[in-house]
Amino acid sequence: MASPVKDFLKNSGGIKVNGTLWIESDGQHFFGPGPVELLERIEATGSISTAAKEMKMSYKKAWQLVNNLNAQTVKPMVIPQVGGEKGGGSTITPEAIELISRYRQMREQFTAFLESATEQLKK
Amino acid sequence: MASPVKDFLKNSGGIKVNGTLWIESDGQHFFGPGPVELLERIEATGSISTAAKEMKMSYKKAWQLVNNLNAQTVKPMVIPQVGGEKGGGSTITPEAIELISRYRQMREQFTAFLESATEQLKK
Repeated sequence: MASPVKDFLKNSGGIKVNGTLWIESDGQHFFGPGPVELLERIEATGSISTAAKEMKMSYKKAWQLVNNLNAQTVKPMVIPQVGGEKGGGSTITPEAIELISRYRQMREQFTAFLESATEQLKK
Repeated sequence: MASPVKDFLKNSGGIKVNGTLWIESDGQHFFGPGPVELLERIEATGSISTAAKEMKMSYKKAWQLVNNLNAQTVKPMVIPQVGGEKGGGSTITPEAIELISRYRQMREQFTAFLESATEQLKK
């Protein structure tokens, strides 16, 4: 009978299985934790620029993510509002809200998977 | 009734959930795909240097991984053989072989999880 993997570790109590999850389209990264957070912050602030700042992400990177999402989807995920001294007015679409919700469901199932995998390493 | 997420994508046939999985010890990365591959190549070649080259990993990085593993475990995962003109002679321990096996089992379960998650996005 093999030893539990946790017993290999000096600090066996601190063992944990962790991971990340994302959606690909044709092998290209489409949607994961970064886009989820960006979309939610755009929804909350109405501003891609503010959302990016809150995430300490460059404005350029945020636009790349938005353009990447919109390029891959039938309907856009984000409706950007460009210009205007005060900014704001960018919105996310109902499809984006649905996508976030589905991703969160999947992430919850994944959390359960990770907990179960952690338990297995203790056996 | 919500639309399947796959229908959001221009190329709905190419949708796939993907992810990575690793083991943490006290919140620190302990073991994942990189160490698995490194250990297997050390086992095959008897050389940390050759294993690193095969992975296009720097020698320094390979040693950091080996030292990081060994520092966190009760028994070492790798028994390095330092020096010698031809190198070789580094070995991995039975505990390392067991750890790799357990990681692979976990990864297989994760593959099944990812396939099931992909199917859910098609519904």
